[in-house]
Amino acid sequence: MQEFVQRMRAGDQRSLARLITVIERGKSDSYSALEAIHPYVGNAYVIGITGPPGAGKSTLVDRLTSQYRAKGLNVGILAVDPTSPFTGGAFLGDRVRMQKHYLDPGVFIRSMATRGSSGGLPRATKGSIRVLDAAGIDIILVETVGVGQTELEIMNAADSVVVVLVPEAGDAIQTLKAGLLEIADVFVVNKSDREGASRLIAELEISLKLGESIPWWLPPIISTQANKGLGIELLENTIQEHRKALEESSRLPEKRQNRNRAEFFKAIEEGIGNLIGNIFDNKGTTATMLERVEDGSLDPYTAAYSLLNDGSVFKEWAAFIEETKQES
Amino acid sequence: MQEFVQRMRAGDQRSLARLITVIERGKSDSYSALEAIHPYVGNAYVIGITGPPGAGKSTLVDRLTSQYRAKGLNVGILAVDPTSPFTGGAFLGDRVRMQKHYLDPGVFIRSMATRGSSGGLPRATKGSIRVLDAAGIDIILVETVGVGQTELEIMNAADSVVVVLVPEAGDAIQTLKAGLLEIADVFVVNKSDREGASRLIAELEISLKLGESIPWWLPPIISTQANKGLGIELLENTIQEHRKALEESSRLPEKRQNRNRAEFFKAIEEGIGNLIGNIFDNKGTTATMLERVEDGSLDPYTAAYSLLNDGSVFKEWAAFIEETKQES
Repeated sequence: MQEFVQRMRAGDQRSLARLITVIERGKSDSYSALEAIHPYVGNAYVIGITGPPGAGKSTLVDRLTSQYRAKGLNVGILAVDPTSPFTGGAFLGDRVRMQKHYLDPGVFIRSMATRGSSGGLPRATKGSIRVLDAAGIDIILVETVGVGQTELEIMNAADSVVVVLVPEAGDAIQTLKAGLLEIADVFVVNKSDREGASRLIAELEISLKLGESIPWWLPPIISTQANKGLGIELLENTIQEHRKALEESSRLPEKRQNRNRAEFFKAIEEGIGNLIGNIFDNKGTTATMLERVEDGSLDPYTAAYSLLNDGSVFKEWAAFIEETKQES
Repeated sequence: MQEFVQRMRAGDQRSLARLITVIERGKSDSYSALEAIHPYVGNAYVIGITGPPGAGKSTLVDRLTSQYRAKGLNVGILAVDPTSPFTGGAFLGDRVRMQKHYLDPGVFIRSMATRGSSGGLPRATKGSIRVLDAAGIDIILVETVGVGQTELEIMNAADSVVVVLVPEAGDAIQTLKAGLLEIADVFVVNKSDREGASRLIAELEISLKLGESIPWWLPPIISTQANKGLGIELLENTIQEHRKALEESSRLPEKRQNRNRAEFFKAIEEGIGNLIGNIFDNKGTTATMLERVEDGSLDPYTAAYSLLNDGSVFKEWAAFIEETKQES
């Protein structure tokens, strides 16, 4: 693992891709990978780009990438699509658009649509961000397609969140409902030459004012026409301002601390999820309870609730793990 | 809670709706609700309907509902949309289509698009299925919009899974990739008057033959034109055949046993997720570890892995819960 990490640190993109694959699979070697890269993590800035399908997020990511490259920064792009592969067509289109970046060694692009792996897309994405960070990448752009729970969870991993909308009836209110208002640091009204753009901006402004009384940061609303490259520089400057505001108010370390905490707790929760089967198959009062749940005489939720409140399950688990250690 | 359950058992749809809301919120009273309904659970038959957007699932659900109603069976419909509210428009259309069923006291319809609640949509949907079951509903139709991880997890709760496709280039292969082939008990090729229907059927047949060597049940492929009501009776008969095959081979009780087990384990995992914060804030080696994770000196994944492998975390948790019990 150390070998891959050293080669990745020396700029080898194949080692980088390989490490992300290890993380995506989520097997036990993903822990060694995350441990091995840890000393190099903490320098990248993570920008999340989200919004409804068809808002032009990929074009925006493409243009932002050019902007950062012109400044000499290298860029990592994670395109996350929880509903894939049924949107495979869209990604093919993206790939054509992104072609010039594919040839640029300062840009690393990866589409993520894992399913089945433990923890799923949010875990795989958060781990991959760490890998890109450790590879020495300056700016990580995480693009999520869609607006479900998974996307909101992924956006937790970003330092700045850009919510992209297009002028279409009701969009602003829909955004509120989808929980995007709460996570947005910057709003983009893309395709701003379309009818309804000014109404959308007005609606967003009202929604923002209905929020917290005195927010420390009021999300700016940027108009763009990503396909023509209009508004991209302003967007980049605004993200930069948000970054500066985070850093100067010491909110950035706090944000990252909370993120570490959340990832830790989630990893424990999932780890226990993986252990559960072994432990219950083994013995003890928990095994008896499982039988009663399986045959339907006990409600699974009530059973889980009483087990956890009683605390005896933890004692049994401690004993089980102790025993396993002695055997091996 | 008992009062609501009794009123629901007597046919009061408002009490039924209220109980589902309690389950959706996932607060501590959801446990009392699930415990209270448990004696009445186990008689409904659950049919999952899934497939890509635009396949005509809602129309199919509408027609199947009429079919079951004509047989005197009452029907519960759960329409689950993880990407809502951005697809709000589609649901409005569904509501118009389903209007005649809304006036029928033998049909209960609920749209589900929870976010934020612990465990999210899969937990809320599985709990709601239990509520509908306890209300004495015969047939529960669970329709999921989209083809992501969440949808696949929800389909685990169904006794029979119907995968709906429409003739469009590449659909059969996409389905394979999305994991729908593995979960389908019946395939529906809807809008079968469209060009490409026979090719889609041929592709599906090949895909199915490439699967297991001697499957106990080979998923039939049914052609429908749901908007004209064509093929619906055949579909209903085929689902009935699958149900009979499950029952006669004792696979149905086994399936439900596994489901109880999975819900139990998931409930424990999530319960621990809710407890984690309290326990770590308290004391012990775990608290020291948390500090090191938060300040970034320890990788969260490595930390979680070592905690769980060591087993000491379980001992600390048992002690913490013991202490909390004595205090209260």
